[in-house]
Amino acid sequence: MRPSTNTWILFLLLCAVVALPACARAPSNSRERALQRSDEADRAAIRAVLNEQVEAWNRGDLKGFMRGYWASDDLTFFSGGTKLRGWHATLQRYRRRYHAEGQPMGHLQFRDLDIQLLGPRSALVRGEWRLERPPKSMDGLFTLIFRKTPRGWKIIHDHTSRR
Amino acid sequence: MRPSTNTWILFLLLCAVVALPACARAPSNSRERALQRSDEADRAAIRAVLNEQVEAWNRGDLKGFMRGYWASDDLTFFSGGTKLRGWHATLQRYRRRYHAEGQPMGHLQFRDLDIQLLGPRSALVRGEWRLERPPKSMDGLFTLIFRKTPRGWKIIHDHTSRR
Repeated sequence: MRPSTNTWILFLLLCAVVALPACARAPSNSRERALQRSDEADRAAIRAVLNEQVEAWNRGDLKGFMRGYWASDDLTFFSGGTKLRGWHATLQRYRRRYHAEGQPMGHLQFRDLDIQLLGPRSALVRGEWRLERPPKSMDGLFTLIFRKTPRGWKIIHDHTSRR
Repeated sequence: MRPSTNTWILFLLLCAVVALPACARAPSNSRERALQRSDEADRAAIRAVLNEQVEAWNRGDLKGFMRGYWASDDLTFFSGGTKLRGWHATLQRYRRRYHAEGQPMGHLQFRDLDIQLLGPRSALVRGEWRLERPPKSMDGLFTLIFRKTPRGWKIIHDHTSRR
């Protein structure tokens, strides 16, 4: 090996040693901006799931509404004093209550949504619901926990209460 | 610069290039073990907050019970169709309902607690509550969101419903 080759290799390695730690963490400003963008994207994705749920409900599409929920036996649904576990049990409850033959599902609205990210893959959503189902109308509050799954953001826990 | 010196520097730099990325992330096994230990510690800390709340309630210490909640105007408390915001509003509600003069606060129990960490500083707690307050007894469900604050794990959102 001639000294001149060594000197070149030395120079390149020196560059690598200097550059590596800088690569390991991006400049904090651009990193913060990237995180902010990703937070906004997550919030928008969660809002889209909720909008799709409302649209599905209002066209009488219960299966479409249920797509917002985690399709898992570990999904939990709390309402009043009733604890349900599992996507199927949750579907059955909605079917029994709102999808009985010949009865329209009514008009659903979500209001005052507050979406708060709790970690890179979790979010808390607080909101109000109102269901107009002549001759009755009902309203109340909900707390939803979302998780980012390979199939997108899904509700893993729903606590709903009525006024 | 003599070739032999160059060769030594070359060797040392090569070691640095190889070692740096390895230093940047600790071996995954020991890291996972450390994370597991920290998860267990977080879960135990959350359970301790809930135990302290129950103990405080059962000795008629409403202020002690309230120490489990985030002392912030952003604390939220949902119950039925009622939305409260802020630690003080939450305290006032408990005071009005359960701490009226001359009436004992009764005996509180939390059951079937399920503590799930949602991120390094957030957790979801699902559970059942029962309050024996002769001549009545009440029970229902709760969903709590905890956040790890500089003052320890605190409830930042409570959704409570009654059977």
